Amino acid sequence: MFKKILIANRGEIALRVIRTCREMGIKTVAVYSTADRDSLHVKFADEAVCIGKPQSSDSYLNIAHIMAAVEITNADAVHPGYGFLAENAKFARICNDHGIKFIGPTADMINGMGDKITAKETMIKAGVPVVPGGEGLLKSIEEAKGLAKNMGYPVILKATAGGGGKGMRIVWEESDMEKAYDTAKAEAAAAFKNDGIYMEKFVEEPRHIEIQVAGDQYGNVCHLSERDCSIQRRHQKLVEESPSPFMTDELRFKMGEAAKKAASAINYESVGTIEFLVDKHRNFYFMEMNTRIQVEHCVTEEVINFDLIKEQIKIAMGERISGDDYIPQMYSIECRINAEDPYNDFRPSPGRITTLHQPGGHGVRVDSHAYAGYVIPPYYDSMIGKLITVARTRNEAIDTMYRALSEYVIEGVKTTIPFHLQLMQDERFRSGDFNTKFLESFKLK
Amino acid sequence: MFKKILIANRGEIALRVIRTCREMGIKTVAVYSTADRDSLHVKFADEAVCIGKPQSSDSYLNIAHIMAAVEITNADAVHPGYGFLAENAKFARICNDHGIKFIGPTADMINGMGDKITAKETMIKAGVPVVPGGEGLLKSIEEAKGLAKNMGYPVILKATAGGGGKGMRIVWEESDMEKAYDTAKAEAAAAFKNDGIYMEKFVEEPRHIEIQVAGDQYGNVCHLSERDCSIQRRHQKLVEESPSPFMTDELRFKMGEAAKKAASAINYESVGTIEFLVDKHRNFYFMEMNTRIQVEHCVTEEVINFDLIKEQIKIAMGERISGDDYIPQMYSIECRINAEDPYNDFRPSPGRITTLHQPGGHGVRVDSHAYAGYVIPPYYDSMIGKLITVARTRNEAIDTMYRALSEYVIEGVKTTIPFHLQLMQDERFRSGDFNTKFLESFKLK
Repeated sequence: MFKKILIANRGEIALRVIRTCREMGIKTVAVYSTADRDSLHVKFADEAVCIGKPQSSDSYLNIAHIMAAVEITNADAVHPGYGFLAENAKFARICNDHGIKFIGPTADMINGMGDKITAKETMIKAGVPVVPGGEGLLKSIEEAKGLAKNMGYPVILKATAGGGGKGMRIVWEESDMEKAYDTAKAEAAAAFKNDGIYMEKFVEEPRHIEIQVAGDQYGNVCHLSERDCSIQRRHQKLVEESPSPFMTDELRFKMGEAAKKAASAINYESVGTIEFLVDKHRNFYFMEMNTRIQVEHCVTEEVINFDLIKEQIKIAMGERISGDDYIPQMYSIECRINAEDPYNDFRPSPGRITTLHQPGGHGVRVDSHAYAGYVIPPYYDSMIGKLITVARTRNEAIDTMYRALSEYVIEGVKTTIPFHLQLMQDERFRSGDFNTKFLESFKLK
Repeated sequence: MFKKILIANRGEIALRVIRTCREMGIKTVAVYSTADRDSLHVKFADEAVCIGKPQSSDSYLNIAHIMAAVEITNADAVHPGYGFLAENAKFARICNDHGIKFIGPTADMINGMGDKITAKETMIKAGVPVVPGGEGLLKSIEEAKGLAKNMGYPVILKATAGGGGKGMRIVWEESDMEKAYDTAKAEAAAAFKNDGIYMEKFVEEPRHIEIQVAGDQYGNVCHLSERDCSIQRRHQKLVEESPSPFMTDELRFKMGEAAKKAASAINYESVGTIEFLVDKHRNFYFMEMNTRIQVEHCVTEEVINFDLIKEQIKIAMGERISGDDYIPQMYSIECRINAEDPYNDFRPSPGRITTLHQPGGHGVRVDSHAYAGYVIPPYYDSMIGKLITVARTRNEAIDTMYRALSEYVIEGVKTTIPFHLQLMQDERFRSGDFNTKFLESFKLK
């Protein structure tokens, strides 16, 4: 049993971890940069240590400073949260070398998933589907046709030196291959002075669906169902939900089994997430594994009635998990409340929160380190809270979200609330028929 | 489908109803006294009408003023909340006579349960257990012995003119009856100049356990399991929970069946609550029925994942309920956050809330009309919010409650938070071994 946990993070996730520690009777140590002196995670921890200047490299990314704080406070474990050092294998190893438990996987597991090529190879060996192709440069049209036949149309040709769509061609059937091959090569040569192209399976109308997993040191692995994170803006998730409106029992079973294979392949120990792309035909492909807790873990907590941070700490203490999978009983949605101006290209809007009133009532959860008078520093991410709702149906969870958003009062800074209010009323969003491209055509009124 | 509901109440319950209406897409009208001009229920409703001076008789109890507000705003239904006019049969009838739907049972049902003697007779007829005895004055020791034998020892003798324990005697076995009878009669004569005494079954170590029920106009009735409200101070509930730590599956089945019989006996239509006393042997006795939503309905909502206000509105709109009973899947506790000084005999502490920070995170629900700057008026009850937690086990729900209470910041007025913090750490409370007398011996540190 840990006596004292140091949280090597800030903001809402630091507060999130402190809350669970307090419920478990474990003392907490907050660390903070000089910019976060008045942050709620500092106020709510049992002890707090300043670890340096606002720049992350001087504080939240500074392993020496953090290890000094561990030493001073006599903490016996470190929770890394997400971001910063959460997937830093060196940090995990240093903790271990000093007899401090890193609440997460081992350095080897982090490394195994941190390198994308290694991770993809591991997945292929384990029998987890990955996006086919991408291995070598194409030598001829005939080779391209053969390869495409194997992976199935549509496929996409990409310039090896490429970017920005140049030298990129989607090929829907074999009869189009010849022309596409020649055009892509010519474009690539013109744009990059390098006509090398390779082929990948084209994922149609992709959804980002991820599977939450947990594993213990005794080899037990379970999945805790999926989260749909397809509502993204430039690869930044804005809204997450569980279950996915696109999910079927059969697909959940298949993806769950694949996710468990992925975790087992590296003997994964802790909670983690396997991210997949799912195409419109419900084919799914491994993208990456996040070997840490995720921002959007809360929707899973709500639909399976489970504290994932508590589970993570228990696993780190050597407890066993049952190995049973968890299937959602409810519907939950999370909106990220960022200090950003949605009317101005989501530009960050740091500054003082002059007035704050948080929503409440049935089915509403608020995870936020904001308070009236809090000054959002300009140095870190702009998330100031997560609003989560839960209900018996997806429609009701959306209705509750709309209601809760309409009660949320944050004055002094711009926030993403107006964006979320419009999204919750959007017919396509409500219908569940969307993919990762959805926000590209979403116009804020 | 209602288009617009007027909420004939104030404070947190008015806000509670507004929230569900907003989620259902129904417009709302708030009414308010001049003392509640700046209340949150006024701010969050679609329309608001001032109905008079602070004294309840001029405003929240003034049927003419409320009906005028209904008329002005063209509302098609009235939600009475709890307290004020919620169990006023005359108000229900007047609404009905004007073609306005009263969201609750009919005037006849309210009357049928409002008069205690009638209610008891109805329950006896329906086969619902009531506390035996209490009917007539005892004429002799022999009659008393016969009666006691029938109802079973222990029994209690009470002075018909009595109060304050005078002329009251608990009789544990027949051999004590003679002395108890004579002493009670003599005491009653001396204290009240009236030596009439009657007998009741003595309920040992009574717990207050109530069953939530719902019925529709088609005769379907279901129960939604129990709430334990034994933590009371002078008959004022302070903490409620579901399920009861004293409950067994067998007892829940029996009490559930009895509660459904009680509701069916008056063809009950709406949500309502049957309150029982349960003795240490798990005998249970009908106390009364509340023909309205209760303050503590939230713990039921959390353990069965169900919006009771939505259900109440749907039933009023003529929808059917399934008739299936609901068994708790989780554990939930509610602490009433009152503006009262627990160190000074719970004296009300009205005034301005200068600082407010509400707890959040996993398993925490806040239902409150308070905000920073809000002035609690001295005219009404002192409840400023309800803090509700939910978890997979009772211990975890208590741990989360302790954590959430410790985060709650309310400055400017005294609150019951220190009392709740101590209670959540109390070993007897945590063990679940308590009854309605528990707080008599609870000392605040």
